[in-house]
Amino acid sequence: MEETLHGLQIGLDNMWLLIAAFLVMFMQPGFAMVEAGFTRSKNTANILMKNLMDFSIGSILYWAIGFTLMYGDSIGGFIGTPDLFFMSDGFGDNYSDYADLFFQTVFAATAATIVSGAVAERTEFSAYLIFSIVITVLIYPISGHWTWGGGWLSELGFHDFAGSSIVHSVGGWIGLAGAAVIGPRIGKYDAKGKAKAIPGHNLTFGALGVFILWFGWFGFNPGSQLAAAGTENAVALGHIAVTTNLAAAAGAVTAMLVAWIRYKRPALSLTLNGALAGLVAITAGCDVVDPVGAVLIGTLAGFILPFAVEFFDKILKVDDPVGAVSVHGVCGAFGTLAVGLFSTSEGLFYGHGAKALGIQSIGVLTFFVWAFGAGLILFSILKAAKVLRVSRRIEEEGLDVYEHGESAYN
Amino acid sequence: MEETLHGLQIGLDNMWLLIAAFLVMFMQPGFAMVEAGFTRSKNTANILMKNLMDFSIGSILYWAIGFTLMYGDSIGGFIGTPDLFFMSDGFGDNYSDYADLFFQTVFAATAATIVSGAVAERTEFSAYLIFSIVITVLIYPISGHWTWGGGWLSELGFHDFAGSSIVHSVGGWIGLAGAAVIGPRIGKYDAKGKAKAIPGHNLTFGALGVFILWFGWFGFNPGSQLAAAGTENAVALGHIAVTTNLAAAAGAVTAMLVAWIRYKRPALSLTLNGALAGLVAITAGCDVVDPVGAVLIGTLAGFILPFAVEFFDKILKVDDPVGAVSVHGVCGAFGTLAVGLFSTSEGLFYGHGAKALGIQSIGVLTFFVWAFGAGLILFSILKAAKVLRVSRRIEEEGLDVYEHGESAYN
Amino acid sequence: MEETLHGLQIGLDNMWLLIAAFLVMFMQPGFAMVEAGFTRSKNTANILMKNLMDFSIGSILYWAIGFTLMYGDSIGGFIGTPDLFFMSDGFGDNYSDYADLFFQTVFAATAATIVSGAVAERTEFSAYLIFSIVITVLIYPISGHWTWGGGWLSELGFHDFAGSSIVHSVGGWIGLAGAAVIGPRIGKYDAKGKAKAIPGHNLTFGALGVFILWFGWFGFNPGSQLAAAGTENAVALGHIAVTTNLAAAAGAVTAMLVAWIRYKRPALSLTLNGALAGLVAITAGCDVVDPVGAVLIGTLAGFILPFAVEFFDKILKVDDPVGAVSVHGVCGAFGTLAVGLFSTSEGLFYGHGAKALGIQSIGVLTFFVWAFGAGLILFSILKAAKVLRVSRRIEEEGLDVYEHGESAYN
Repeated sequence: MEETLHGLQIGLDNMWLLIAAFLVMFMQPGFAMVEAGFTRSKNTANILMKNLMDFSIGSILYWAIGFTLMYGDSIGGFIGTPDLFFMSDGFGDNYSDYADLFFQTVFAATAATIVSGAVAERTEFSAYLIFSIVITVLIYPISGHWTWGGGWLSELGFHDFAGSSIVHSVGGWIGLAGAAVIGPRIGKYDAKGKAKAIPGHNLTFGALGVFILWFGWFGFNPGSQLAAAGTENAVALGHIAVTTNLAAAAGAVTAMLVAWIRYKRPALSLTLNGALAGLVAITAGCDVVDPVGAVLIGTLAGFILPFAVEFFDKILKVDDPVGAVSVHGVCGAFGTLAVGLFSTSEGLFYGHGAKALGIQSIGVLTFFVWAFGAGLILFSILKAAKVLRVSRRIEEEGLDVYEHGESAYN
Repeated sequence: MEETLHGLQIGLDNMWLLIAAFLVMFMQPGFAMVEAGFTRSKNTANILMKNLMDFSIGSILYWAIGFTLMYGDSIGGFIGTPDLFFMSDGFGDNYSDYADLFFQTVFAATAATIVSGAVAERTEFSAYLIFSIVITVLIYPISGHWTWGGGWLSELGFHDFAGSSIVHSVGGWIGLAGAAVIGPRIGKYDAKGKAKAIPGHNLTFGALGVFILWFGWFGFNPGSQLAAAGTENAVALGHIAVTTNLAAAAGAVTAMLVAWIRYKRPALSLTLNGALAGLVAITAGCDVVDPVGAVLIGTLAGFILPFAVEFFDKILKVDDPVGAVSVHGVCGAFGTLAVGLFSTSEGLFYGHGAKALGIQSIGVLTFFVWAFGAGLILFSILKAAKVLRVSRRIEEEGLDVYEHGESAYN
Repeated sequence: MEETLHGLQIGLDNMWLLIAAFLVMFMQPGFAMVEAGFTRSKNTANILMKNLMDFSIGSILYWAIGFTLMYGDSIGGFIGTPDLFFMSDGFGDNYSDYADLFFQTVFAATAATIVSGAVAERTEFSAYLIFSIVITVLIYPISGHWTWGGGWLSELGFHDFAGSSIVHSVGGWIGLAGAAVIGPRIGKYDAKGKAKAIPGHNLTFGALGVFILWFGWFGFNPGSQLAAAGTENAVALGHIAVTTNLAAAAGAVTAMLVAWIRYKRPALSLTLNGALAGLVAITAGCDVVDPVGAVLIGTLAGFILPFAVEFFDKILKVDDPVGAVSVHGVCGAFGTLAVGLFSTSEGLFYGHGAKALGIQSIGVLTFFVWAFGAGLILFSILKAAKVLRVSRRIEEEGLDVYEHGESAYN
């Protein structure tokens, strides 16, 4: 073993990146449990299969092309130079190239998996595979290049530390496009257009999923520091863990209070989504807001969430079975804007003017236009090709038996 | 990156503390799954909500005040000087201040969550929130200050490495007070006072929870070394992992054998609690007992457990749905005493006399008087205010629908 | 703290080994969820109990004797010198002796737990405990000594990086012996010998288990590098994480495609096992194959899997309820052979001739003869003693109530 300072430092940083990546990978069963628990038992095998497949296909394709599209040498700030089937036993200042690839792969898979919840319970499995591939290979890497890849948005000064917009809003807005194009589930709206609640089949799985996601988020946010050695990183990692945790907690408490006041009951399902709302919102600014800012961001996210859910559900009549659009799209956008308000070094509320808020707004708008627009085109093509939605009979009797030949429960 | 020996050391120790904290945070779904699985399906959303809320509210309040009450400059060895809304981007010898706060927060949340199991299936949700707050803000930090905060018990030489008493017994004894004051569930005792078993609804969730807790305990115990750099810490961490694992294993095996002999069947539920009994018991002395001592401590804990459960259930007629008082209260106290017996450097069985045992006994007694007493006052006030227990009808039909407006299963 | 280069390096490597061991320990609930989910609800408490016990008893016995039988000073390359109740507060170049023991313990427990799936739903619990003990104390450590212990197979040049053969095939082949000797479950084959599918009771648990195993595998494979400090290890760890993940992904995708084409439906259960097949197969060569090789190995494993399942199920008529023999035995053997094909430094496909393939074949054959043979003897003795299988009535009504006195679900 080469016992040099640099060898130890790279060993330490590389280990941190890998462990963080493992935690982010573990968010996959978190999403799977949330989405399975919040939907009906007749579609459980289907939703689990979708989660398993977007991670599997995504892992292969992001390695095969997505990674270098996102991080390759920039072509005019808009896209990276692709290098098919990435292979490199090299290393940079902090970690090896493969550790980098793996960390980025699990982030890409997170963006893809968010969509499955929004279009749950009525989407054709093969169509799901197609748009999951397009997201991993094109939509996510391209906008990712504009920011983390060093492209034009990052040059503008846009700050999205761990991906409130880059990962979560992208997933959420594509999901919005999908849910809108595919239409509501049978029975979601009555003849007069009144929304009816379709409860999930197992909130224990839902709660387990949220706890797993909360746990995995400690890889997502602190991991995005990309280094652990030295006092500066030590301080940053502790800081990010605390702001992440406080925002999640505040999101859960606030969503519960809103439910209690507005719907007369502290409902578990909304409270669980409140925790996720806080986590999504703090992701952009977890490094630059202080604990008070984190609590406020989480509180606002937990407050926004129920109204966002109602807005899509009752006003726009977009049927999003697990609330993915509100949690990841809306709260991701809010969290990105919140950097412009709560950043202790750049935020409006800390006396630094509105410049950062302006740049953040440009970013939020860009991600909405890009992800929602690309999603709209993608889903419209699939709809026109008549492969997007299962038949009425399959939807009514359940996707599990018809699409996958087995029930989740026997 | 500052490539200095000190910068690498602090990076390493800080990373270890954070990863350990993540594992301890992950014990929250462990508790949630155990408590949900060991109770009835009509109260599942309620118990999940309680677990989610004690962690959420606890995280915010422990940051806002509990942390400095526990670790602030001592006021006469009895309480720390509070410093509201702790903020510090500083660092100490081994880790950053925020990493420290986060590590301590997840420990505080563990103490609070233990209580929810003991009072499950009949407690008013709002009352639960109130006593959960009091535990995190007052009861846990104050006795915590006497020991880990450097107060009078630590000056006496009391040894509780990772919290058999400081965390587990405190939770267990408050739970005992709660279960006693609130009274048994309807149907738990027949007209003649004979105890009837009320089986939990899903042992798969229960088993998953125990495995998650076992996993999380490798953050709880080895993490309490608070450092990883250097050969001394390397040896200590491996040592603690081994003693922790062996005690859990021995607790499970012994509880199974007791069940097999005494109840004619190797029951899963008791065996699962036996593993937890071993884990709780080894927590105080995992650093100072050797593997043989660890196996003996786990064996004794697994042996004590079924009799403790019977004692509370049949003799005292205290209804503790998940056995939290026996696991955390009794086995926590036993494990703390066991340090005085099995410590290779101070224990009676290793020829070092009874001094350590005496000091450990003082600690165990102190924690019982403090936590049980404070719990008794707290729950009696809530009972007198008539907000502690749900109505008969709600208890019979299930807390989920009445208190939270939704069922866990559909 | 001793701030020396060596102290930091050992702290780093030791921490890595421990965290990897924690992840491997967490594979236990992964196996438990897979096996519980893939079997019937009347036998759930039984299968959970078996998983809990093989880890518990295994942890104690591997410490008490197995570890030194495997790693003690070699007696002629065939077995280590036993040193009962291993105790050492010493350390080596990279980690402490106890960290080493703990890491090896969780690997031994993995081998043992694989068997429980193959013999599920009809094995007497006490018989299970007996053969679980023999596996941990004798079968696994002895063949383990031939390889990782530095014995004759390792001297031959046999390469099995993290245990495709040493851990997985051993478990799989013992399971094959067990399933063959104990015979199929009642109702598995009709009067004409036609195999009937007996679906598992909860695929959500099954999917959760597979995701947990996938996550834990990042301790299993990267952890087997046994070090993290220095650029060489940093590169190796990233490399192994990537090859491991890609093979799992390719296994899942391929198994799904085979199911889709051959059975007309992309079945979740087979796809889940496809991911495991990829993980098992890449385990031997994750360090020496490149990403393309990893995808090919995973693809082949995912392709082999369904045919292996059919072969045992329909041709040999061996009833393996969860497919453990095909996943761990067959794909473990395939993965070991694949090193001889795909290793970039020694493999046939990379122009290095058939020498490595020959040595790998000797290893694969050795492990089959040893593990299947030892298993055959072991299970035949238990069968002759009439303690291997539960009575017809218990099997029909469920092992939970009769053997353990409780149901998993109420």
